[in-house]
Amino acid sequence: MAIADILFGRPLATKEERAEKIGPLAGIPIFGLDALSSAAYGPEAALTLLIPLGAAGVAYILPITAAILGLLLILYFSYRQTIAAYPAGGGSYTVARENLGDGAGLLAAAALMIDYVLTAAVGISAGVGALVSAIPGLQQHTLAICLSILLIVTVVNLRGVREAGVAFMIPTYLFVGCLFIMIGVGAVKALAAGGHPVPVEPLPRMPPTTAVVSLWLLLKVFSSGCTAMTGVEAVSNGVKAFREPTAPNAQRTLTIIITILMVLLGGIAWLASVYGIGATDPVKNYESVLSMLLRAIAGRGVFYFVSIGSILLVLSLSANTAFADFPRLCRIIARDSYLPHSFASTGRRLVYSNGIYILALLTGGLLTLFGGVTDRLIPLYAVGAFMAFTLSQAGMVRHWMRQGGGWHNIVVNGTGALATGITTVVVLTAKFLDGAWVTVLLIPLMLAVMIWVRRHYDAVAAETATEEGVDFRDVQDPIVVAPIAGWNKVTQGALRFAYTLSNEVRAIHISAGDETEDLFCQSWTELAVSPARAAGLPPPKLVVIDSPYRLLLTPILHYVLQVEEENPGRQIAVLLPEMVERHWYHYFLHNQRAEILKAWLLIKGNQQIILVNVPWYLRA
Amino acid sequence: MAIADILFGRPLATKEERAEKIGPLAGIPIFGLDALSSAAYGPEAALTLLIPLGAAGVAYILPITAAILGLLLILYFSYRQTIAAYPAGGGSYTVARENLGDGAGLLAAAALMIDYVLTAAVGISAGVGALVSAIPGLQQHTLAICLSILLIVTVVNLRGVREAGVAFMIPTYLFVGCLFIMIGVGAVKALAAGGHPVPVEPLPRMPPTTAVVSLWLLLKVFSSGCTAMTGVEAVSNGVKAFREPTAPNAQRTLTIIITILMVLLGGIAWLASVYGIGATDPVKNYESVLSMLLRAIAGRGVFYFVSIGSILLVLSLSANTAFADFPRLCRIIARDSYLPHSFASTGRRLVYSNGIYILALLTGGLLTLFGGVTDRLIPLYAVGAFMAFTLSQAGMVRHWMRQGGGWHNIVVNGTGALATGITTVVVLTAKFLDGAWVTVLLIPLMLAVMIWVRRHYDAVAAETATEEGVDFRDVQDPIVVAPIAGWNKVTQGALRFAYTLSNEVRAIHISAGDETEDLFCQSWTELAVSPARAAGLPPPKLVVIDSPYRLLLTPILHYVLQVEEENPGRQIAVLLPEMVERHWYHYFLHNQRAEILKAWLLIKGNQQIILVNVPWYLRA
Repeated sequence: MAIADILFGRPLATKEERAEKIGPLAGIPIFGLDALSSAAYGPEAALTLLIPLGAAGVAYILPITAAILGLLLILYFSYRQTIAAYPAGGGSYTVARENLGDGAGLLAAAALMIDYVLTAAVGISAGVGALVSAIPGLQQHTLAICLSILLIVTVVNLRGVREAGVAFMIPTYLFVGCLFIMIGVGAVKALAAGGHPVPVEPLPRMPPTTAVVSLWLLLKVFSSGCTAMTGVEAVSNGVKAFREPTAPNAQRTLTIIITILMVLLGGIAWLASVYGIGATDPVKNYESVLSMLLRAIAGRGVFYFVSIGSILLVLSLSANTAFADFPRLCRIIARDSYLPHSFASTGRRLVYSNGIYILALLTGGLLTLFGGVTDRLIPLYAVGAFMAFTLSQAGMVRHWMRQGGGWHNIVVNGTGALATGITTVVVLTAKFLDGAWVTVLLIPLMLAVMIWVRRHYDAVAAETATEEGVDFRDVQDPIVVAPIAGWNKVTQGALRFAYTLSNEVRAIHISAGDETEDLFCQSWTELAVSPARAAGLPPPKLVVIDSPYRLLLTPILHYVLQVEEENPGRQIAVLLPEMVERHWYHYFLHNQRAEILKAWLLIKGNQQIILVNVPWYLRA
Repeated sequence: MAIADILFGRPLATKEERAEKIGPLAGIPIFGLDALSSAAYGPEAALTLLIPLGAAGVAYILPITAAILGLLLILYFSYRQTIAAYPAGGGSYTVARENLGDGAGLLAAAALMIDYVLTAAVGISAGVGALVSAIPGLQQHTLAICLSILLIVTVVNLRGVREAGVAFMIPTYLFVGCLFIMIGVGAVKALAAGGHPVPVEPLPRMPPTTAVVSLWLLLKVFSSGCTAMTGVEAVSNGVKAFREPTAPNAQRTLTIIITILMVLLGGIAWLASVYGIGATDPVKNYESVLSMLLRAIAGRGVFYFVSIGSILLVLSLSANTAFADFPRLCRIIARDSYLPHSFASTGRRLVYSNGIYILALLTGGLLTLFGGVTDRLIPLYAVGAFMAFTLSQAGMVRHWMRQGGGWHNIVVNGTGALATGITTVVVLTAKFLDGAWVTVLLIPLMLAVMIWVRRHYDAVAAETATEEGVDFRDVQDPIVVAPIAGWNKVTQGALRFAYTLSNEVRAIHISAGDETEDLFCQSWTELAVSPARAAGLPPPKLVVIDSPYRLLLTPILHYVLQVEEENPGRQIAVLLPEMVERHWYHYFLHNQRAEILKAWLLIKGNQQIILVNVPWYLRA
């Protein structure tokens, strides 16, 4: 296990679970990376759609950002209440399901799952976008860099939540620090220059105007800008990960995250408009808006590269929010039997490994499909998030109505539900043809799968349900069948164990018909029959089956089925000796045959046939 | 399993093995593809090294091909004898091991395994070389095309040997037919033109002379040309695949393969020299020698494209020889315990799946590493093949000396051993720095692994060896521990089965401490205790363990270990109910927890703890 230990950290005993709890300082990077880092692609996504309006279009970013900040504030108050009301973890799924019913819950779940995959994909692609802005020669390797970063994030997350927090804390605070300095210096320069500062370095010229402004265009700009809000719900999903008192710690974390995010979004939009910085073509000679802003304000010096470095790190690792929350969400859904129960098992380091694998696969697929270009991913984004926001807030309204939580609470969450509901419709309409239709297709598909899984579990439960007690009449010893390849201590142990189960033991030996076989059969009396007689037990019966082509498994399988047929009602216990290795690399050397026989017996067998693994421990 | 069926064919029962035998007609494509197709890269590999000599250098191809044909003839007679002497399959490994000892056998095995990987890689890369000669626009996608072809070959081979033969028969015979027509027409034109025919189409001009001829250069040319001989041993490895009478059928196949190969090699070399066709740069504006020959003789018409098509198919699918023989070789080595025994198990369709997976992986790695360029792979090639040839022929000499096989036989194989031995030294020396050193490094590594595997199996055999009979004294019923989650038919069945094993049964229930738990405990008496008393059995003991964090596996594991400690010498049988699904996609829905518990019990447990899988069959 040594290699796995280095990669994923030593396995944690389940007891250590309590220690893996975090406070706000660690909570901001873990649950805030997505929200904060979206400052780096949200404004840019909006500005990209303003390109056709030319240099004059940049000014529209200010009113649109104002609308986005207003919406963000509404969301903040809504989610503060959710955290307080659901200290055990109030994800959209839980809140919608408990208050609005299973259907709404599943809808929220599907929307969120899609959203997390996009969070991971957009985070990574935008991070690589920052990198290729600084080093244009790397642009042709965009996809390869994206996938490498995905691999690193996956491995870090398989190590477990606390280490992931530590690994991401420094870049997050560096990122926030750099952007605050940029906004501060930029603000001073802008004010000193009377609102018309001169860039330190020449910037790419905006292309000429090719369109006129329209309400439709502004709606699309707003919809794209809304991607800056994704990730706000992360804290409320993960309340349980915080240390006591969990709810206040989580609320404090949310407050800090939202405050920072609003400063970043507002600052970037304002500086972009005063410097006249628009977006560039996302594929050819791409340079990110933040890269241009940094160059305009501070030039291409040490600060520029430190900032770009922190943006690269934070953006690509913002995928971590998805990696922290997606498996948690899957676990909650799996507990309600809408996803396979294996999603609810914790892995080596108390993280939900299955969820991580699935997320890594989907994200990798999406990045490959879209060549790692953020602009192509944006239209798919935000629909899921806002759908989940709406369901969650609507659920909270219902929650207060039931609980009698007071008008104040209902108004806060009602406003949230209304605002996000309208935004969902706007985003879906504005970006339907650009890619949002994928989400519209995926969600019913995911609903169908989740319902199918639940139906299956329900059917199994119904099939096995009973109110009756055990029928202990006519309990008979099983017939024990022990396949025996030759004489050794494993055989000895298996035969002795066989007699602890039953006095009716049959050893089955597959013979290729050569001399050593005759010797084996002759020694049988001495090795097994006589000792059994001496101990007063009925001796084991030796069944020798000729197999000229050296087939092993088929004759054993047939024999077991035949014994089962000849003894209706009797249980047949098949002994399968199993070598237990001391090193994982020994695994490939043993037990393959026993595994195949076991699988065959399960497939071809029936309720009467029981498989008994008799372990043999090899010395180290 | 429907998808797997379509891809790999329906699983074959082991009984059908006998039907999977072939005659010469199917044997030529299966075991001859590598040998025959090497006509397409062998002469070209030699000509590539003659490029520095300019137009005049092409003439040297004639004496070098003559030397190669002589060597090929010697090999032919050698291997004819091997087939006769080893009708059960006389691969270099078997022959060297039986006659020269284990060390020589393993050396041959390692050499052959390397050779098979290169056979697959070079076959595919050269095939794609033919394709990009005809369609130069595809040259930039060389690697992607190589890997796609590898995937197809792998899937076809996982379907099993007979179908692979049918799938490759048509291209092989088309390839041979096309090249025979080309050589025939070329010969007529050349003779009619008095030995100086005019090409139908203009050919690329040879670059100017940049070197003078030297013995060292000619040795390198010969070494590269020897790659045309690889694959000759395939038939002798696979004798068992032929139908009765196996040896004569295999010999007939070998005769046909060698005859065709000699005609192809001789014809291509002669025509290249009379048309003055040399090789082109292998990376920039590449065109294969056969493409130029076809254009020179017949022009770029229908015949050209049919021929190139057949070359593409045959060359890339020549990898099939490796896919037919590599798994067989692994199986033979695994039977001698030098490779994991799982290599000896047949897969779904009676092919040795593990060997196929390994070969596909290694070939893919090699193609990726060398960008799918044949010329870069050539220096690694041939060393392994000739090392194996030498060991095999030397082994045959020893065989005849032991068996008293007559001077004739000894001389034939002795000549073979001497000729291939000298060639091995020449190839190794001439190409050492160009890449043959990789082989020199790899072979000891592989020997070390094989010896380590064997030592492990020997150590296990020694550890478990015993001459003593079973000690049946004091055989006691096991203590049965049955983890129980709730009350259903699975629980019922498990409890009833528990009493067939022993009268000492303990049901262990993990409680989260809520109300439903109390209900379960109250009903226990009615459901289990009373029926047991009524049947005159000691009632099962219910052990309830509180687990506030809903951990399931740790408490069960601890309890089992504790029972084991309190009852020294007693066997503890842990019942693990297992859901048997009717569809493979149900697999993900069940048993994961039981699997984890089983793995934990095996790792943390000891010889006293036995795992009993109690299957529960779900309705379809």
